[in-house]
Amino acid sequence: MATNPTFKQCYLPEKKGFDSLVVREVPKASPKFGQILVRIKAVSLNWRDAIIAKGTYPFPGPDALVPGSDGAGIIEEIGEGVTEWKVGDRVLANFTQDHLAGRLTKASLLSQLGGEIQGLLGEYFIFPALGMVRIPDYLSFEEASCLPCAALTAWNALYGLVPLRAGQTVLLQGTGGVATFGLQIAHAAGATTIVTSSSEEKLAKARALGATHLINYRTHPDWAAEVMRLTQGNGVDHIIEVGGTLTLQQSFDAIALHGLIHCIGHITNPDPLGKGKELRGPDAAFLALDRVCIVRGVVVGSREQLQEMLACFEAHAIRPVIDRVFGFEQARMAYEYLWNSSHTGKVVISVP
Amino acid sequence: MATNPTFKQCYLPEKKGFDSLVVREVPKASPKFGQILVRIKAVSLNWRDAIIAKGTYPFPGPDALVPGSDGAGIIEEIGEGVTEWKVGDRVLANFTQDHLAGRLTKASLLSQLGGEIQGLLGEYFIFPALGMVRIPDYLSFEEASCLPCAALTAWNALYGLVPLRAGQTVLLQGTGGVATFGLQIAHAAGATTIVTSSSEEKLAKARALGATHLINYRTHPDWAAEVMRLTQGNGVDHIIEVGGTLTLQQSFDAIALHGLIHCIGHITNPDPLGKGKELRGPDAAFLALDRVCIVRGVVVGSREQLQEMLACFEAHAIRPVIDRVFGFEQARMAYEYLWNSSHTGKVVISVP
Amino acid sequence: MATNPTFKQCYLPEKKGFDSLVVREVPKASPKFGQILVRIKAVSLNWRDAIIAKGTYPFPGPDALVPGSDGAGIIEEIGEGVTEWKVGDRVLANFTQDHLAGRLTKASLLSQLGGEIQGLLGEYFIFPALGMVRIPDYLSFEEASCLPCAALTAWNALYGLVPLRAGQTVLLQGTGGVATFGLQIAHAAGATTIVTSSSEEKLAKARALGATHLINYRTHPDWAAEVMRLTQGNGVDHIIEVGGTLTLQQSFDAIALHGLIHCIGHITNPDPLGKGKELRGPDAAFLALDRVCIVRGVVVGSREQLQEMLACFEAHAIRPVIDRVFGFEQARMAYEYLWNSSHTGKVVISVP
Amino acid sequence: MATNPTFKQCYLPEKKGFDSLVVREVPKASPKFGQILVRIKAVSLNWRDAIIAKGTYPFPGPDALVPGSDGAGIIEEIGEGVTEWKVGDRVLANFTQDHLAGRLTKASLLSQLGGEIQGLLGEYFIFPALGMVRIPDYLSFEEASCLPCAALTAWNALYGLVPLRAGQTVLLQGTGGVATFGLQIAHAAGATTIVTSSSEEKLAKARALGATHLINYRTHPDWAAEVMRLTQGNGVDHIIEVGGTLTLQQSFDAIALHGLIHCIGHITNPDPLGKGKELRGPDAAFLALDRVCIVRGVVVGSREQLQEMLACFEAHAIRPVIDRVFGFEQARMAYEYLWNSSHTGKVVISVP
Repeated sequence: MATNPTFKQCYLPEKKGFDSLVVREVPKASPKFGQILVRIKAVSLNWRDAIIAKGTYPFPGPDALVPGSDGAGIIEEIGEGVTEWKVGDRVLANFTQDHLAGRLTKASLLSQLGGEIQGLLGEYFIFPALGMVRIPDYLSFEEASCLPCAALTAWNALYGLVPLRAGQTVLLQGTGGVATFGLQIAHAAGATTIVTSSSEEKLAKARALGATHLINYRTHPDWAAEVMRLTQGNGVDHIIEVGGTLTLQQSFDAIALHGLIHCIGHITNPDPLGKGKELRGPDAAFLALDRVCIVRGVVVGSREQLQEMLACFEAHAIRPVIDRVFGFEQARMAYEYLWNSSHTGKVVISVP
Repeated sequence: MATNPTFKQCYLPEKKGFDSLVVREVPKASPKFGQILVRIKAVSLNWRDAIIAKGTYPFPGPDALVPGSDGAGIIEEIGEGVTEWKVGDRVLANFTQDHLAGRLTKASLLSQLGGEIQGLLGEYFIFPALGMVRIPDYLSFEEASCLPCAALTAWNALYGLVPLRAGQTVLLQGTGGVATFGLQIAHAAGATTIVTSSSEEKLAKARALGATHLINYRTHPDWAAEVMRLTQGNGVDHIIEVGGTLTLQQSFDAIALHGLIHCIGHITNPDPLGKGKELRGPDAAFLALDRVCIVRGVVVGSREQLQEMLACFEAHAIRPVIDRVFGFEQARMAYEYLWNSSHTGKVVISVP
Repeated sequence: MATNPTFKQCYLPEKKGFDSLVVREVPKASPKFGQILVRIKAVSLNWRDAIIAKGTYPFPGPDALVPGSDGAGIIEEIGEGVTEWKVGDRVLANFTQDHLAGRLTKASLLSQLGGEIQGLLGEYFIFPALGMVRIPDYLSFEEASCLPCAALTAWNALYGLVPLRAGQTVLLQGTGGVATFGLQIAHAAGATTIVTSSSEEKLAKARALGATHLINYRTHPDWAAEVMRLTQGNGVDHIIEVGGTLTLQQSFDAIALHGLIHCIGHITNPDPLGKGKELRGPDAAFLALDRVCIVRGVVVGSREQLQEMLACFEAHAIRPVIDRVFGFEQARMAYEYLWNSSHTGKVVISVP
Repeated sequence: MATNPTFKQCYLPEKKGFDSLVVREVPKASPKFGQILVRIKAVSLNWRDAIIAKGTYPFPGPDALVPGSDGAGIIEEIGEGVTEWKVGDRVLANFTQDHLAGRLTKASLLSQLGGEIQGLLGEYFIFPALGMVRIPDYLSFEEASCLPCAALTAWNALYGLVPLRAGQTVLLQGTGGVATFGLQIAHAAGATTIVTSSSEEKLAKARALGATHLINYRTHPDWAAEVMRLTQGNGVDHIIEVGGTLTLQQSFDAIALHGLIHCIGHITNPDPLGKGKELRGPDAAFLALDRVCIVRGVVVGSREQLQEMLACFEAHAIRPVIDRVFGFEQARMAYEYLWNSSHTGKVVISVP
């Protein structure tokens, strides 16, 4: 410790866009009772990281922030009283640090890394022993870092309320992080899958991951009608609803009786508490009744669910699709790329 | 049979309001294989009956209709092959005739009496053997006739997806049929209950049925804030959402983490496919995510659920609140009263 | 009808073994209101059929019996009032005729074809309209006839109480009907599967159907220890318990925390109410507590589950493994073969 | 701290009966990061405590042990990093310290106080912050101390797998701790309850707590037949199975279709791994199938469930039945009384 008393960390002293992002040097501490010190090796970015940096993230959190929620690394030091871990273990952070199992509480909801609480985009991070899970051997740090937020959200959608059954049908809106993991999980689980996108290239990538049906919503703007055609008028059992306000009506038009619309994003209303507050949605109360369906908000998931999911990923050797890996010093470029490029798959920052 | 070859029946040759309602004489038939002939003794009305007569009911059905979904009577004749029943049994119609258990199907959804299919507001009706359930001894025909639609909807809300637990909190919007039954069920089930109304008199009646907390939304127009105060900021676990579009935002503001908003009505948007189509709601996709909650459409329930519910009603000797009983010849008056009066409890038509 | 007033049917005037089985000629009737007449094309046999013929089946039923529960055929005539079907539809019988959805009742439990009620092993059978389901196009009559009892039992085990998730582990005892279907379903559902058998040849067939791990219990008589080794000491999440009394202790030794032991058979105690009544089992009350697990009886399944299952089978083009097809006149030989041979897969009787 | 460097604690240097129990003086420590120091005010005893002291407890744990699992007290000191608590908070220990929510794991199963890990029967105990829950204001320390093991076990039985519904029927074997709490919970939840006992006096106490039906199994040794009579042949939906091996057959005879037998005790086989190992039970695999029911082991419950349960207890002001309170110096007498007396309700040790 004496030889390396400080370490590098990304930092947002204010949330005014990607230019706010700086690298700072901070003192390195030792883990206390029940804690572990982790050498971070890779961090992946989510759309959430971008809107946090831009200041439009609609949930509470500190003004000045270390960003980054999805990180993987190696345990370098073990605090007193920790029995689950040993130095050298490869670990992955659980996005909602205090959501260990069961339901979210008001307190645990506010323990999301890199937003509600300080994040891990730096060389080191100190976690409570239960804030981490073991990385399966088959995954690299870069790959593992892609999973905590997006993959777990998809898993929670498909298994967190009414579990997906083999033979059911799952619709994925687009090919972003949650949708792509949702496709991989649904495919492994024996579901029929439908992917929508405006890009033939992205649809081809979805096909390669096992998508059963593809819908280009440029050529089929009424994609719900196409879903109904593909499902003989039955609709789909699960929809990963990424768009939010502006796609919700079509999700209602594409859902099966007793189906679930999992609201995980609000891309079409990125600032719902700001200027978009006047942006209204369809009459969801009537539509839920009319379609006899379920609309559900999904906020990532628990440590227990993350472990369940990793067991499934390992059994199927599911690997995340990585679009591009940036170096730690290129963090700002990684944010820009995430926001501006038409990427498929995850954007990762490798930490030296 | 020879001595009574016809019987009286209410009829809506066209759906242009309560004045369209006529009484007609129709031939009496015998039950076929698997059917039973029931002498109807009492029929209760629902808000649905009113909007069906007015022609604004937003679901499909025949143009000319015998109205009435909620009827109780005595089996008068048994068709060949029927083993469950005997002449003289007291029976109650299941609202969704073909919804026997499990999930609704597209076909069973279209088997709702007096709307999607012909109704039972008359002296006789022929049912399939599984279209009825036994009436517990402690209930009169008038009382039993109140249960099929409203009480079963409340039961399905509270037990159909995530079952209510003793000690949870349930909010009932108003004191209409579903809300009042919801109050009685939730009270029997050991839940803490909150009732909203604009009338102190109705709130007093709710108190008498066991309501824990009362909110007059004239004095507390922001009733969600009052709910949060009463629940120490936790919100309620179940909301019976009767209002629809115009109350949904407050339901989101009053719901607990992982709570359920059961959409069973659309009173504030009585014609959602007509001129009200431009009436929009809050951004439900974002709000479901923000509140980590579930919005769910509830369409009455199955025969299995009706039997479960009657077992509970019998164990607690729950009796429906009847506001007023009309004679069969006063059916039109009963509709007018239902629509125009500020009643509490059910409006019943007694069939001679 | 006039040209073919009788048809052939297998019959057990008394239950004293396979020699009791005769073919008789009976009059052909027309379907009544709500019924359909089906030309049976294929019937598959189950172990249950054998013990019924032998008179050791431990459940109630008529003394003289038409055997056969699992039949597929073509609708030849439609009774009045039937809207779901048309002449020529390819249909499959639901094993428990009155179990339409939801829970079994005391009445529906007694509606099992060819045991509790008369069976369908003949050229024709009259069903209630809801006693059948549609056969997916990709299946032949022989193949379809294999599914009602064994496949649905496996489906109910894996999805009927705590639904199987992708990535969980399922153990199949042996390679009989239920076990083999359980393997095919679990494999389609993305589970890790373990199959036990005393035959390397049968294990090889299980491997071909996708089994992840194989255990020969001749070489590993303590197969539970081998299961623990294969699962890193965690045990398996679901066990299809076919053996009963004499395998239950090892199932307890192989189950994961919160795992499910699905009791579907009693092969090691084929006459539990007869001379085997003194045959006792392990202290299940203590073992369930000690292993924190669930032991559950599974009795086939509902029509709703059969439809769910067929949707899954169709999506994965799952075909039953047929060991051998006998002609209708060879029915007694088929029974002998079922009981005496070391077959893998189903024994089918083709009806001309 | 300087003025009181030691505190008193009960201790079992060896497990050879209640005479092994001694009081020792041990040094008092301060809570570390994430911990809290609690001044214990009351501890209640369970049957488990008695068999632990006798050395027949069939689960693993340290040879020398501080006993006691169910304790309530006041937070006296807060470790660094603890945000949930403040000095002076009234708290109750969670029996399975590391079972926070969701499923048990192999590690959390081994964190049961006073058996698998060291217990709290002393003046002070240091807990992890999440090892405790808040005591509702209406409960005294003595009352609160009665709840962690027995009440939570009953709650987990009734709500942990298939949630109890109002109107269902619950059978409680006897009037011990878990059974009495089960009665109070089931009564609050609107269930019909049946209590068995060999004592009219105890049955009268059960009646006072709301029991619907009472069965004296001295006068009705075939109590299952009496249950069937009381339930019109339907059986009960939930059985709290306390007896184990020797009562299990009757539980199977008294259970409803799809009912649950919750195995929480083994009173009739107190040493199942010792000389009782040859004691066998009924053929549970066949009986589960024959009765189409669920047998389930229940091991106390999680912190999340304890909080749910306390919310219910508070809403209904449920108070535990306390049989007798002993002083801290009378701990051995309390054990003797628990084991030898025919008490109803809990035995509590008050800590000065």
